[in-house]
Amino acid sequence: MKIAILPGDGIGTEIVAEAVKVLKVLDLPFEMETAPVGGAAYEAAGHPLPESTLALAKAADAVLFGAVGDWKYDTLERRLRPEQAILGLRRELGLFANFRPAICYPELTHASSLKPELVAGLDILIIRELTGDIYFGQPRGRRTAVDGHFPGAEEAFDTMRYSRPEIERIAHVAFQAARKRNRKVTSVDKANVLETFQFWKDVVSEVHAQYPDVELEHMYVDNAAMQLVKAPKKFDVVVTGNMFGDILSDEAAMLTGSIGMLPSASLNAANQGLYEPSHGSAPDIAGQGIANPLATILSAAMMLKFSLNQPEAAARIEAAVQSVLSQGLRTADIHSEGTRKVSTREMGDAVVAAV
Amino acid sequence: MKIAILPGDGIGTEIVAEAVKVLKVLDLPFEMETAPVGGAAYEAAGHPLPESTLALAKAADAVLFGAVGDWKYDTLERRLRPEQAILGLRRELGLFANFRPAICYPELTHASSLKPELVAGLDILIIRELTGDIYFGQPRGRRTAVDGHFPGAEEAFDTMRYSRPEIERIAHVAFQAARKRNRKVTSVDKANVLETFQFWKDVVSEVHAQYPDVELEHMYVDNAAMQLVKAPKKFDVVVTGNMFGDILSDEAAMLTGSIGMLPSASLNAANQGLYEPSHGSAPDIAGQGIANPLATILSAAMMLKFSLNQPEAAARIEAAVQSVLSQGLRTADIHSEGTRKVSTREMGDAVVAAV
Ligand SMILES: CC(C)[C@H](C(=O)O)[C@@H](O)C(=O)O
Ligand SMILES: CC(C)[C@H](C(=O)O)[C@@H](O)C(=O)O
Repeated sequence: MKIAILPGDGIGTEIVAEAVKVLKVLDLPFEMETAPVGGAAYEAAGHPLPESTLALAKAADAVLFGAVGDWKYDTLERRLRPEQAILGLRRELGLFANFRPAICYPELTHASSLKPELVAGLDILIIRELTGDIYFGQPRGRRTAVDGHFPGAEEAFDTMRYSRPEIERIAHVAFQAARKRNRKVTSVDKANVLETFQFWKDVVSEVHAQYPDVELEHMYVDNAAMQLVKAPKKFDVVVTGNMFGDILSDEAAMLTGSIGMLPSASLNAANQGLYEPSHGSAPDIAGQGIANPLATILSAAMMLKFSLNQPEAAARIEAAVQSVLSQGLRTADIHSEGTRKVSTREMGDAVVAAV
Repeated sequence: MKIAILPGDGIGTEIVAEAVKVLKVLDLPFEMETAPVGGAAYEAAGHPLPESTLALAKAADAVLFGAVGDWKYDTLERRLRPEQAILGLRRELGLFANFRPAICYPELTHASSLKPELVAGLDILIIRELTGDIYFGQPRGRRTAVDGHFPGAEEAFDTMRYSRPEIERIAHVAFQAARKRNRKVTSVDKANVLETFQFWKDVVSEVHAQYPDVELEHMYVDNAAMQLVKAPKKFDVVVTGNMFGDILSDEAAMLTGSIGMLPSASLNAANQGLYEPSHGSAPDIAGQGIANPLATILSAAMMLKFSLNQPEAAARIEAAVQSVLSQGLRTADIHSEGTRKVSTREMGDAVVAAV
């Protein structure tokens, strides 16, 4: 089993180091190889996703990814900016299915912006399509407007699009995931305005015919943004496109109040996957040894389950994380009175000990 | 001064009736004329926005709009569905600037999903561009994919676009609004992925040069969706495109916990405007006389201020609403222990009395 380790920028190196420690203690026959990505790769090799890094990722069964990005790259031309690395990996590896759980741990309910009764026990799974939509649609660019409100003016444009098989495959992923949970799927669209999402809604409904045991509800994206705030626990699995999924998955993650705890997985049709924490590179706290490594450690657990067929090892890691929380260990982002504030490394060590 | 009254569907007729009562008691030289819109107009005239309704709206200085929509029209072809009326009015009247305040009234702070300390005193203004973006961009439709992941497959597509003058005029609106408030504008984009929003960001920054007294911050839409949950009070004016604005303005409205209190205004370059509550037609409670008319009454106040040049009358209405809240009157949606539950009509009567 080959794992590509791509720590990236900011706190990426620190949190990935802890996850690697945890993976090593499992004593499984992994081969791990590290490569630069994002700003770090731009510094080292002039490109955020160098050929060698991409080749390593493609050859691996799974990629453990930290985070990319730093304000200092904001002025680079777009194709050289760190986030192009993650977009490139998604495209080149065909990682169309993004799993983003939003879970509220009992010990951390108080950290939420929401009243405890609204989030206690929250466990929703956002499934975001990740290789289509307006993220990758062509054509896009700048031109002179030929129609619209100001013909002759300079304009910029992008293309939103979804094909039937793209919608079908992500719908299957969602219905199958719901079968392992509470058998309810909310498909989020904007069918009242967009042709793309009328089609999305139609195709999801068609696929639903094969899953009579799963409840399907359709919801407009603006309403979904509201219902997530109003009554998040009413959701089970949410499936949506790349753009809406970007927004809603972050909103849902923030509802839990502990985004430093949330892993994610991005899979292709062969179950090859990229695993990364839901949070970003946090350049403001990089190098201080205070970042929370648990989202990355839990991402490694998802990797064991989804791509490496090691569900027992995954369960051991999850239990270990649960145990360090029960012990009262907290990094700064989730620290509260009566708990023990620990560093990134101490948290990693505690998980290793608990495993 | 001519006002077009378009009550629409669901609770629309009930809440607009109360706002009209309040307008009448002001004893100003208004001419008000009512016309059907949405599902009601489809029933009466076979189209959600009949020619006569559109002509009335165009000829008026302002439109007071209730709400449109009902599940029973879900199966109609798209061009006949109620929401096409609102899209048609925006387009035909050129209502490019949508003002959506998200205000948390001290008396209603407890109704928010968020912890009181996060929303007490909340007062943000979302300015959404309303006639451009992927809502109206051409081409759009269905076709056979020629490239992408599944060439040859059936696909649907839409076009996102913004021209320089469209971005400039909404940016001016936002900076000018910020000057009357806390002089901070957050421009929300997705410049890291979309050509349209890289252009948006560039043009907003250019316009900002004319407003050195206003602070400008740029934020990605996914981050904005998070920060609204985490620390909504950090925002003052938020300006964004039509699609992102649809999502974020609803999210922000729901944060207040009292969406039944939130008015909105949609203006064109001549200050002609359409005024409507931020909430929808709520067909589930229509006809029961329990809907909250205050958002519509406050929309009428915005109308007096923005389109009819009657700021004193607007202030009288706003003070009257404040007074009924202080008296402890509450419709069902905002009712809590220790306050008096009233009907739609009783609430309207109380505002009339207070005016
Ligand atoms: C960095 C950016 C391109 C990316 C996205 O928009 O997909 C990020 O926000 C994410 O959600 O992984
Ligand atoms: C009804 C719908 C077309 C509309 C929109 O998306 O603009 C609504 O959600 C709104 O925000 O006014």
